[in-house]
Amino acid sequence: MTKFQTPRGTRDLPPAEMRKRQRIIATCQKVFERYGFEPLETPAFEDWKMLSAKQGGGDAIRDEIYYFRDKSKRELGLRFDLTVPASRFVASNPSLPKPFRRYQIGRVWRYDRPGAGRYREFWQADVDIFGSDSPLADAECVLAACDVLEALGISFVVRMNSRAIMEDFLKGAGIKNADGVLRAIDKLDKIGKEGVAAELKTARLKDKGIKELLNFISLSDGKKILSKLTDEGKSAYETLKRIGKIVSSRFETRIDMSLVRGLAYYTGPVFEIVAGAGPSIGGGGRYDSLVALFGGPRLSATGISLGVDRIAALMPDEKATSAKVFIASVSEKTAEKCARLAQELRSAGVSCEYDVTGRGLSKQLAYASSKGIPYVLVVGEKELASGKYKLRDMRSGKESLIEEKDFRKLADEI
Amino acid sequence: MTKFQTPRGTRDLPPAEMRKRQRIIATCQKVFERYGFEPLETPAFEDWKMLSAKQGGGDAIRDEIYYFRDKSKRELGLRFDLTVPASRFVASNPSLPKPFRRYQIGRVWRYDRPGAGRYREFWQADVDIFGSDSPLADAECVLAACDVLEALGISFVVRMNSRAIMEDFLKGAGIKNADGVLRAIDKLDKIGKEGVAAELKTARLKDKGIKELLNFISLSDGKKILSKLTDEGKSAYETLKRIGKIVSSRFETRIDMSLVRGLAYYTGPVFEIVAGAGPSIGGGGRYDSLVALFGGPRLSATGISLGVDRIAALMPDEKATSAKVFIASVSEKTAEKCARLAQELRSAGVSCEYDVTGRGLSKQLAYASSKGIPYVLVVGEKELASGKYKLRDMRSGKESLIEEKDFRKLADEI
Repeated sequence: MTKFQTPRGTRDLPPAEMRKRQRIIATCQKVFERYGFEPLETPAFEDWKMLSAKQGGGDAIRDEIYYFRDKSKRELGLRFDLTVPASRFVASNPSLPKPFRRYQIGRVWRYDRPGAGRYREFWQADVDIFGSDSPLADAECVLAACDVLEALGISFVVRMNSRAIMEDFLKGAGIKNADGVLRAIDKLDKIGKEGVAAELKTARLKDKGIKELLNFISLSDGKKILSKLTDEGKSAYETLKRIGKIVSSRFETRIDMSLVRGLAYYTGPVFEIVAGAGPSIGGGGRYDSLVALFGGPRLSATGISLGVDRIAALMPDEKATSAKVFIASVSEKTAEKCARLAQELRSAGVSCEYDVTGRGLSKQLAYASSKGIPYVLVVGEKELASGKYKLRDMRSGKESLIEEKDFRKLADEI
Repeated sequence: MTKFQTPRGTRDLPPAEMRKRQRIIATCQKVFERYGFEPLETPAFEDWKMLSAKQGGGDAIRDEIYYFRDKSKRELGLRFDLTVPASRFVASNPSLPKPFRRYQIGRVWRYDRPGAGRYREFWQADVDIFGSDSPLADAECVLAACDVLEALGISFVVRMNSRAIMEDFLKGAGIKNADGVLRAIDKLDKIGKEGVAAELKTARLKDKGIKELLNFISLSDGKKILSKLTDEGKSAYETLKRIGKIVSSRFETRIDMSLVRGLAYYTGPVFEIVAGAGPSIGGGGRYDSLVALFGGPRLSATGISLGVDRIAALMPDEKATSAKVFIASVSEKTAEKCARLAQELRSAGVSCEYDVTGRGLSKQLAYASSKGIPYVLVVGEKELASGKYKLRDMRSGKESLIEEKDFRKLADEI
């Protein structure tokens, strides 16, 4: 018989890994709700035309998405992010009160080349505000994401830039093909300055333009940046500063002219959250034209997405087991009594399992030990007759006697 | 611009619907962990050969599953349940301590004809125990599912039967083609006794066999059932009674010879949970050959699956909003101050939003009201100077003055 593996680029999440996820997701839910974001879910797959609309439905995007047809030949694709489906939802539900704050936590799929920490199936946790063009809305989204990371004990920096600044600079410098140029800059972390220069050459930039551009994206001094911009660019820079001021009252931010987010739908400020150790663990920005593209009204929107898998990779595995107590049965005759006892413990709030195999006591104890269940309750005829049970602390080896009336107290103590 | 709809058979889950889901899922997690089940996740899609293994990889199953190829021509399919992937996981991880109790809550996809309450994308919440052939293990899974439903306030009955009883009866009655016969009986609720009789005729059963079979599945008296069985069948019936005895100490159960679960992998006891109002909201059973089929050791397994969408349909929408307080800004000048105040409220544990649109006070109040946010805090220059804010209860219209030092108390009160 063949053993089957998970499809390339995907993986199982065993219990220790899942507990981390559950903690991340519960933290996201709690923080996002505290910011007034409402939960939303959308299907795993969407109309292919919708997914590819922003990209003009070309073949390039088809190479990066799981594309398929259903039995009725409908063209579908697995969602590659949560922003596009949420925008489709907002476009199709015009009566939603605005601004609409929503959060969404779920899987997305991209047909990327799998690598260290890069999967074809991964989890995102998003917050977005639809219906506000104010920098306050951008700041809200960034702050919510930062609050999640702070609650999880992860240190990070928020990098900020604006598509509007970049486009203004490019226009001023007489550089065309902004999309191609920005895509090249987006690879800076991966291929370095020289790699970007080579790509820009391929994108038909002249040497002078390449030099000016590489200089611009390395600027950090506000005055020098402003000197390269028209009034429109200056205003975009001031907007970015205003967002930065609000966020930096609590978290470290850095305006970084080399930051360009990969996705084509951004129109204004863009953000990336980088963990102390290096990897990007979140990103987002303003996308003011997506809702209208999907047949909705012209509606400003901004949001940020946390990479749940990247965050999980920064956290230690959680080794806790679900069961706090294992009920060991001295003989097979007492097994059914243990079933009743398990019900009593559970209704008192104690998580427990009992033996359902009928195997010997020593094997039962070995099982509890191999799973790391911290306490064992030993149950035989004698214990059932007296109503007093031996509770063994598996770490210290200490034993104590407890009765059913102590079960609620036990729930608080362990 | 076109508006896009969700693909046929799928749907969005807007906030009121999502809150119900979150409550169901949180209840499942809590109850399942109390029973010692450990969390597991598996990919949304799997190797096509694995998904179709139990069905012999035929075209019939391809018609019922979302099948596709990735860019490297790998044959894949969206998972149609959570039992098959979990069995694959157990087969590929032989060092897991046994019994392995796992729970898994997530989406599955089937290419069914969409109808009332029937979707192509739906959510299941499963518990399974791998590595025990004892009826105690079956009872644990059924009890865990029942405890979830009880906690959610849903009334239900557990119907029980056994594949082993059915097969013993069919053998004794000289009826062959057990798979086809069981599939026909599975349609009883949909097509009625006469419909089943017609299907059985197509499956080449003689009139006598059809009569005997229809009589058998209508039996409820234990003695009459036993009289139709060999020793093997009698033993399977006693096993079923033993499970029923444990479960019925807390929940209503009913042995029902007409119950046949649709999936091909069941080998022993099968269960179905039916809501008071009628629809099936859960089901499962024993499947002792699946892990070995996926290349693992011979390992007994049993489990049950709750239908999250069916359960949600029985519950009223939850109209609560995430935000408990809306901070209304008297003028645009005070908006940024409101941002700081929102941070204070949130860190005190009060969920809130503030205006990020810059619109007038009356529009802000209309927004808070349309969303159903229960309290509004009105903030202007005067309030900021005095540090005293008017808190309006939107239902009663009552107003009170509060200061920042009261924020923690407010979190407990609202």
